[in-house]
Amino acid sequence: MMMLKTCTLFLLIILTIRELRCDTTKYEPNWESLNKRPLPQWYDEAKFGIFIHWGVYSVPSFSSEWFWNFWKSNDSSFVNFMNKNYPPDFTYQDFARDFTAEFFDPEEWAEIFQNSGAKYIVLTTKHHEGYTLWPSKTSFSWNAMDVGPNRDLVGELADAIKNKTNLKFGVYHSLFEWYNPIYLQDKSNSYTTRNFVLQKTAPELYELVEKYNPEIIWSDGSIEASDDYWRGAEFVAWLYNDSPVKETAVVNDRWGKGMNGKCGDFYTYSDRFNPGVLFEHKWENCDTIDKNSFGYRRNAKLSDFRTTFELLTILAETVSCGGNLLLNIGPTKDGIIIPIFQERLRDMGAWLKINGEAIYSSTPWSYQNDTKTPQIWYTKSGNNEVEPVVYAIVLNWPQGENLELAAPQLLENQSTITMLGYSDPLQWSFTSGEIIQITFPNRALVSSNWAWVLKMTYVQN
Amino acid sequence: MMMLKTCTLFLLIILTIRELRCDTTKYEPNWESLNKRPLPQWYDEAKFGIFIHWGVYSVPSFSSEWFWNFWKSNDSSFVNFMNKNYPPDFTYQDFARDFTAEFFDPEEWAEIFQNSGAKYIVLTTKHHEGYTLWPSKTSFSWNAMDVGPNRDLVGELADAIKNKTNLKFGVYHSLFEWYNPIYLQDKSNSYTTRNFVLQKTAPELYELVEKYNPEIIWSDGSIEASDDYWRGAEFVAWLYNDSPVKETAVVNDRWGKGMNGKCGDFYTYSDRFNPGVLFEHKWENCDTIDKNSFGYRRNAKLSDFRTTFELLTILAETVSCGGNLLLNIGPTKDGIIIPIFQERLRDMGAWLKINGEAIYSSTPWSYQNDTKTPQIWYTKSGNNEVEPVVYAIVLNWPQGENLELAAPQLLENQSTITMLGYSDPLQWSFTSGEIIQITFPNRALVSSNWAWVLKMTYVQN
Amino acid sequence: MMMLKTCTLFLLIILTIRELRCDTTKYEPNWESLNKRPLPQWYDEAKFGIFIHWGVYSVPSFSSEWFWNFWKSNDSSFVNFMNKNYPPDFTYQDFARDFTAEFFDPEEWAEIFQNSGAKYIVLTTKHHEGYTLWPSKTSFSWNAMDVGPNRDLVGELADAIKNKTNLKFGVYHSLFEWYNPIYLQDKSNSYTTRNFVLQKTAPELYELVEKYNPEIIWSDGSIEASDDYWRGAEFVAWLYNDSPVKETAVVNDRWGKGMNGKCGDFYTYSDRFNPGVLFEHKWENCDTIDKNSFGYRRNAKLSDFRTTFELLTILAETVSCGGNLLLNIGPTKDGIIIPIFQERLRDMGAWLKINGEAIYSSTPWSYQNDTKTPQIWYTKSGNNEVEPVVYAIVLNWPQGENLELAAPQLLENQSTITMLGYSDPLQWSFTSGEIIQITFPNRALVSSNWAWVLKMTYVQN
Amino acid sequence: MMMLKTCTLFLLIILTIRELRCDTTKYEPNWESLNKRPLPQWYDEAKFGIFIHWGVYSVPSFSSEWFWNFWKSNDSSFVNFMNKNYPPDFTYQDFARDFTAEFFDPEEWAEIFQNSGAKYIVLTTKHHEGYTLWPSKTSFSWNAMDVGPNRDLVGELADAIKNKTNLKFGVYHSLFEWYNPIYLQDKSNSYTTRNFVLQKTAPELYELVEKYNPEIIWSDGSIEASDDYWRGAEFVAWLYNDSPVKETAVVNDRWGKGMNGKCGDFYTYSDRFNPGVLFEHKWENCDTIDKNSFGYRRNAKLSDFRTTFELLTILAETVSCGGNLLLNIGPTKDGIIIPIFQERLRDMGAWLKINGEAIYSSTPWSYQNDTKTPQIWYTKSGNNEVEPVVYAIVLNWPQGENLELAAPQLLENQSTITMLGYSDPLQWSFTSGEIIQITFPNRALVSSNWAWVLKMTYVQN
Repeated sequence: MMMLKTCTLFLLIILTIRELRCDTTKYEPNWESLNKRPLPQWYDEAKFGIFIHWGVYSVPSFSSEWFWNFWKSNDSSFVNFMNKNYPPDFTYQDFARDFTAEFFDPEEWAEIFQNSGAKYIVLTTKHHEGYTLWPSKTSFSWNAMDVGPNRDLVGELADAIKNKTNLKFGVYHSLFEWYNPIYLQDKSNSYTTRNFVLQKTAPELYELVEKYNPEIIWSDGSIEASDDYWRGAEFVAWLYNDSPVKETAVVNDRWGKGMNGKCGDFYTYSDRFNPGVLFEHKWENCDTIDKNSFGYRRNAKLSDFRTTFELLTILAETVSCGGNLLLNIGPTKDGIIIPIFQERLRDMGAWLKINGEAIYSSTPWSYQNDTKTPQIWYTKSGNNEVEPVVYAIVLNWPQGENLELAAPQLLENQSTITMLGYSDPLQWSFTSGEIIQITFPNRALVSSNWAWVLKMTYVQN
Repeated sequence: MMMLKTCTLFLLIILTIRELRCDTTKYEPNWESLNKRPLPQWYDEAKFGIFIHWGVYSVPSFSSEWFWNFWKSNDSSFVNFMNKNYPPDFTYQDFARDFTAEFFDPEEWAEIFQNSGAKYIVLTTKHHEGYTLWPSKTSFSWNAMDVGPNRDLVGELADAIKNKTNLKFGVYHSLFEWYNPIYLQDKSNSYTTRNFVLQKTAPELYELVEKYNPEIIWSDGSIEASDDYWRGAEFVAWLYNDSPVKETAVVNDRWGKGMNGKCGDFYTYSDRFNPGVLFEHKWENCDTIDKNSFGYRRNAKLSDFRTTFELLTILAETVSCGGNLLLNIGPTKDGIIIPIFQERLRDMGAWLKINGEAIYSSTPWSYQNDTKTPQIWYTKSGNNEVEPVVYAIVLNWPQGENLELAAPQLLENQSTITMLGYSDPLQWSFTSGEIIQITFPNRALVSSNWAWVLKMTYVQN
Repeated sequence: MMMLKTCTLFLLIILTIRELRCDTTKYEPNWESLNKRPLPQWYDEAKFGIFIHWGVYSVPSFSSEWFWNFWKSNDSSFVNFMNKNYPPDFTYQDFARDFTAEFFDPEEWAEIFQNSGAKYIVLTTKHHEGYTLWPSKTSFSWNAMDVGPNRDLVGELADAIKNKTNLKFGVYHSLFEWYNPIYLQDKSNSYTTRNFVLQKTAPELYELVEKYNPEIIWSDGSIEASDDYWRGAEFVAWLYNDSPVKETAVVNDRWGKGMNGKCGDFYTYSDRFNPGVLFEHKWENCDTIDKNSFGYRRNAKLSDFRTTFELLTILAETVSCGGNLLLNIGPTKDGIIIPIFQERLRDMGAWLKINGEAIYSSTPWSYQNDTKTPQIWYTKSGNNEVEPVVYAIVLNWPQGENLELAAPQLLENQSTITMLGYSDPLQWSFTSGEIIQITFPNRALVSSNWAWVLKMTYVQN
Repeated sequence: MMMLKTCTLFLLIILTIRELRCDTTKYEPNWESLNKRPLPQWYDEAKFGIFIHWGVYSVPSFSSEWFWNFWKSNDSSFVNFMNKNYPPDFTYQDFARDFTAEFFDPEEWAEIFQNSGAKYIVLTTKHHEGYTLWPSKTSFSWNAMDVGPNRDLVGELADAIKNKTNLKFGVYHSLFEWYNPIYLQDKSNSYTTRNFVLQKTAPELYELVEKYNPEIIWSDGSIEASDDYWRGAEFVAWLYNDSPVKETAVVNDRWGKGMNGKCGDFYTYSDRFNPGVLFEHKWENCDTIDKNSFGYRRNAKLSDFRTTFELLTILAETVSCGGNLLLNIGPTKDGIIIPIFQERLRDMGAWLKINGEAIYSSTPWSYQNDTKTPQIWYTKSGNNEVEPVVYAIVLNWPQGENLELAAPQLLENQSTITMLGYSDPLQWSFTSGEIIQITFPNRALVSSNWAWVLKMTYVQN
């Protein structure tokens, strides 16, 4: 009996210690607690990621990844497309067999992403259609191992990214599924039941993290139901406290109706969010190369694809205002990143190779854009020996020889201005008061083909 | 007003009586209680039903409905079949799109079944593959509405059977699914978890009953796990107590490891169970026209199909020994009951039209088969005015003019012997003691083409 | 040396004789000459052959082998079928890829044919669609080697028939092709041009004979144009004079508009020709097991298939009147002879095994059917020692004990009557003059299940 | 009346002259005669055309349009591709059904071609596979109307080009077909027979011209057999003398073994012929955007596509040396010109819009490239008022401010140098003798993004 007492005491001590340790580091499963977690540094430094929309919609590859929903809503262009090309009883799920992915070479993808200058990727492991790109335990016969590719697309890409690049691997995951009857049942019960969350959403999220160790969980499809229904906070608490990626994983903010911009490591608000002004909280702009679609569209015209100039403009705006750019591509059903996407990504990479200093690890500056010359966006480098260094991303080469800037306050004789990708310092002078006039070099001698970056030292504001 | 009061009182009494009756007849969710329920009479009287195996296996239609399992077990004939005819990455689920059912005409099927003389049908609403022939709420994208036919095959057939025939509609349902990860998880947990039952099996069974009101629930796929895991008794208690078919529905015995022959309205033991001796408890013999398969096989040879003679032999044996025959056909992926099946079924129907009196509503007699002449099976009719009437089903027309029977004890001058489908009474006499010698008529004048039935009155034993 | 000379002389004489014989027997390329050729004996003796309709129409397998033509003629049932099951731009030729023939086992077919009692087969090597079942040199990319099976179906079947059976191998060949533009051009030129014949029809016929040595050339599709356009006589002259099968090959009569019943070794007139009266010239009745189609129909009902009784009736009628029966089956696109066809063919074989004596090598008798009892057909055997032997094929077993025949004149005390498949002689007597009354045996002791043959000796008329 | 007579007489004279001219200009069906025909001016002036390779090879779209041939030659990469993705018996012709062309919009293509600056297109109406993109009368069931698109692709594109653009429409046509048995027979007869030419090649060529009035006949596939076998001269004589396009049609030189560079309106020699030196006879360089293939390749990498810079280099070299550039694209099986092709073509168009003056209707100058500065190519304009005008196409913007040219001899004070797409005249001076030094403007003010054209007047050599 005495012995027993000792044991009990010992146990109590252990439990208490554990509790104490937990108290200091354990997040609670509510957003108030979770939102206190500091943003893992890597994410803010990365600035540029690639979004990949790939799924059964890549088979019809018509209009967008919302194909199924528009078709079932009797949108005439979709109905006509089906009538013209398929037998009457053809279903959306019948498309899955043609999602063959026979040319999917994850190492080739990894090389393309690596050379794009992106620092992370986010793959749609499951979109609103419900089809999972990995052999999910809760999506029997509606996943990429069971029908179509007969491969674990998530696993193969995760491995290639981890083994062949220094990029982070992230997963997009849709909470809701348009036509999953279990979800529809909860919905018709006004979300008083939560079978779908318990049987499908939650297990999937844990499975994804445990199996593939993604460092971004990009939640979506949350807005029909409240946070109370989805209870993402429970999952995120586990992710932060106990998961294999607890130190580095980040999540976005799409965890329930009204939650956008209110929870998570970074805010995404709505798609293609690009406010043009500084935001305090870390945010991300998910935008697309194909202006009209995240998913691959066979019949996209050239004019539907943003030019490299447009993409760099978006990157400059986004980073300057404190955001990351998550730039989307849609591979084909056979697993190909079509050349126009490759070209845009390699252009980005070529530009970042020269000008990355102004992007990666930068922070927003006092000004985001110049007050005199349009189409110029600023960033700041916090880690430079000649503090503070400010970068002006000049989207358009000046028509004349000179460029004028009104925002930076420079020190005569001390501040220098160089152009990334050009060897010599640039001549500059004050003109009409504080306005700086910079003489541009012979463009033929400049490395960068687009968006030239001026690096200024001893900036006083 | 006085009248109203009386009425109210009367009503109260009725309700009270009913309540009392209900109280006393509510079954508890355990087999001890459930097994006390009397067998609904219709089932014993029906004697003959049709089993329909239809599913994704009807697409390869190779070897049997166990195609997937044999293939995945690396059985060489299956592996060779796949190698010869499909690309390497083709999956079992990829077959589903070709399950087109374009010629499925439920009213035509109903007519065929009606004219086969069967009194009920049992359709595989879900086999071990997990694919449901109805739009199951718990089998998203792996059901006949979502992929393949784009139709509710269960619903359409149920309607046709109910509207166009007097047959009962029944559903086969496999508890386990070979490759459903949720099941496999429970299995790897040694069935200490029951997620699969809670999320899949149980909801499906309730859904089937509530939506289609089947009067047979033909459970299968139970033997890997115990009754305690499946808890079929809970469902059957609801079925008997509260379901819309509580008065008439019957269930078989396949509800868990070791339960065959121990629970349910009728016992099925193993497939093609045909003991040849009398069984006390009601039982059923599910046998096939194609000797080697329940599912359709494209390459079945003629010799693989039982002849009408063989089928009538099985029917006679089964009914004589107290069983029902559930005779299986396998429709094609396009929804066709191939002519050889039609022919066998119509032969059965033609025979039963003449000889049904010896089958339907019959009961086993003291003897099952004759002690002198082989291939003769007996039944008894309990509802005839000239009690007791005994039927001898003579499978082979005698080589000579006469047939000898040793089992029945007849009354000279009083007992009569007639042949069903022949107008005049047959001559008979005693020979060598108790043995009866019956003179057979000119076969050309007899209606039946096979298995002639002798009807004997005033049988004394 | 002397000997050598004698030999040489002898050889010279032989060669000269042969030359002379050849000179005298060379047929000229016109029907007047060709029609003088004696019918090769084997064909008349064979009596029963199997017709096989197999082609791209076996893929839709809807309605009949005329599918394409009806569809293109906007017959609504065909248009509806296409609208319901295929995309709008689906063409007839698009079906060809699905003509897979993966289960086609020519030796299995050969075994089925052998056991049907047939003595020859005729395969549609090319129907009006133009698709050739062999790698025709003049049908590039529209033949079974190039699209669909990727096999030489004609060659494989020819080999199996020759190596595994004693049946003769024959080829059906359609002269015209519905939609071949070269033919349509000749047609629109009112057949004043003959490009189609020169480039397509004629080369095909020679190729077929030289490559596969068929002993029946079953021409069809001739009636739109005259014999002068097709010039079949040129081919047949070569076939009779110089081809590898010159001694044994036979041809039918479909060689041009108005030629049916006027040329060739045997006359076919129209499909399912069955006159019911004796014809002097050898003829053939090509009839079908599926009453409505030569090509396979997936949705044929059981009632569409002739019963064995009906088929034996047709065989008896046909042979009795001097014809051969060419009984058609339509295999499936996967190369299967469906069980109902197998059953009918094996029934025929079983019957012929017992009763073949009345069929093979028989000749028509003075009477074809009986003048008193209906459904009785006669044949005669010319090679029996007890001349003349006459066979009465009795389609219906008599209702009473006896059967009466009015046609045969028998010799009392000398003529015997036996039943094929029954051991003892039958008792018979004269009744009401010349009419013979035959006592039928106990049917249970008779081997044949249908159509009993009475063999009568010493028949006087 | 007098006047009328004069008119009539005048008319008669004209008609007579015309007749005489016609008589005298009738070409004989031999190359000696045909080669005397003057080149229709439009072709020399056009300089730039688009080649379109589209056919059944666009379905596998693997490696190149020679897919079939490499596969059948057992090249392992092709055999592996087939083994990995198709069932063993899949044939090349089986691919045709998937050549769906559902997104083929000929007017959209026409717009793309028009805006590329090209002046003609050449479509592969039939490649070596033998499949015709129009409903050829001699290619039954192996053409785009019969299998696959179910459309007349040649006709639709011809109409769009003619109705929506000012481009000329041309047809590529392969004389030989790899696997056409009729051709193979002629070949195995050492071309002593000519059935293939008579039945296939010749009718096709006449049909193409009569039906679609193409103004370029781009013959190919001739080198296995001699001109005497193919007898293209007969067809070309008809084309020049009597066809509906006799005034304007041009043909290339691929009309038989050893004929390349010896006959026809323009010489093509071998594919991608680009000699870099002046050729006297008009020639054409057919080169590709995808460096490795004329046909579409799904898995082409970005690095496989020539950059706009490379394409303009090829254009400059080719035109400077007297050739036309026929630049190839390969549309997809669904009828799409993928964005990277669109982009290259629109880049070409943008460049030509500014610089077309140096290309269209230009003639070669005394020098083709500069003797001092590399990557500069010259052309001359013969129709300018300030004769002679010489154009220098400067592929690389000079690293310094100036560019030096050694080839042109200019007149001081009189010769001017301007840059196309830049408003002001450029400053220039003589340096070290005859060498001209030109001061380049601020590149930011120049319209062209690539390959700047210097226009020089009063050039003396």
